Amino acid sequence: MTGVFITVEGPEGAGKTTVLERIVKVLSQRGIDIVHTREPGGIAIAEQIRSVILNKENTDMDARTEALLYAAARRQHLVEKVIPAINRGAHVLCDRFIDSSLAYQGFARGLGVEEVGSINAFAIAEVMPDLTLLFDIRPEIGLARIHQHTEREINRLDLEDLSFHKKVREGYLYLAEKHADRIVVIDAEQKEEVVFQQALAKIEKVLS
Amino acid sequence: MTGVFITVEGPEGAGKTTVLERIVKVLSQRGIDIVHTREPGGIAIAEQIRSVILNKENTDMDARTEALLYAAARRQHLVEKVIPAINRGAHVLCDRFIDSSLAYQGFARGLGVEEVGSINAFAIAEVMPDLTLLFDIRPEIGLARIHQHTEREINRLDLEDLSFHKKVREGYLYLAEKHADRIVVIDAEQKEEVVFQQALAKIEKVLS
Repeated sequence: MTGVFITVEGPEGAGKTTVLERIVKVLSQRGIDIVHTREPGGIAIAEQIRSVILNKENTDMDARTEALLYAAARRQHLVEKVIPAINRGAHVLCDRFIDSSLAYQGFARGLGVEEVGSINAFAIAEVMPDLTLLFDIRPEIGLARIHQHTEREINRLDLEDLSFHKKVREGYLYLAEKHADRIVVIDAEQKEEVVFQQALAKIEKVLS
Repeated sequence: MTGVFITVEGPEGAGKTTVLERIVKVLSQRGIDIVHTREPGGIAIAEQIRSVILNKENTDMDARTEALLYAAARRQHLVEKVIPAINRGAHVLCDRFIDSSLAYQGFARGLGVEEVGSINAFAIAEVMPDLTLLFDIRPEIGLARIHQHTEREINRLDLEDLSFHKKVREGYLYLAEKHADRIVVIDAEQKEEVVFQQALAKIEKVLS
């Protein structure tokens, strides 16, 4: 019996982390074996790759290089963390996965959803999520939320301008329409309690 | 007027480095602007990626992760070094390129030439070599040559067993047959002087 693979998508500031922590807590208290992760997720090789991507000195990084590095880190995290968990019957809740690359690199950076899809297809080798929750929020609201949290360091990707984040959102909504059987959109501008309840309900449904 | 892009392929121990150095010297003395490079080629981002690949502690690296990392380093080296050189009219002589990935990862590691080809197509975005010289040598001979050179450190890839290196050779010869218009096979078991003269003649032909 293999576990269920769930991914959660959306921009920074959509409140994914807080809501996911609450969901994991609730499900764990019910005795459900659930692994909460996010690439690179403590996997040494994936962490090394992510360091190269986020290194602020690497300002000359080409968009295709970046997309290949995300795919590489994704592969290693999948092989070392997600697949072993699913195989022992645990459910996996992964914060960001293939749709992040499609929305950010494929759509917003203009590399093409098909092209970025092809390198990610190589990376995941058919291990697709059973369910994807998309936390949808207007970038103006999401970015404002981030800047309130002074304890979280602003990284290179946050510094991209607003129009980029608008394209990311467009990309996500395009994917949600295209893969309506897998991706569920949740309005992340609602109160946290409502977002939490809606996300939990969708997850409970796929687990049952 | 753009320069010519030439790649040189073959296993370790085929004598590529020595012969290429002689060719570059001869052509430079004739006043030809030639750039001799090899990924990661001093490009900071590509060097960082290569460090992750060759790190001896990364024994759990998945074959697909490795292939994606090679493609990422290739992209950055191409963008920062090869393309600018060609655009200013210089000729580029690159030691290893896409065919290494196809032969090593695609063929020898069994990931599939088509699959590894797709991520490399993404990485090079249509910047294919005008000419590729394949230095062909039986792996028994090539590996024996490596072990004579005590000054060169043996890395993780050298430690793969002989049957792997035999598959690499098979992969290379398959590619040479498939892309006979681009790839020229040179018998690297011949004396260095003969290999040098044959390689030089092919390069002179494509440059004229």
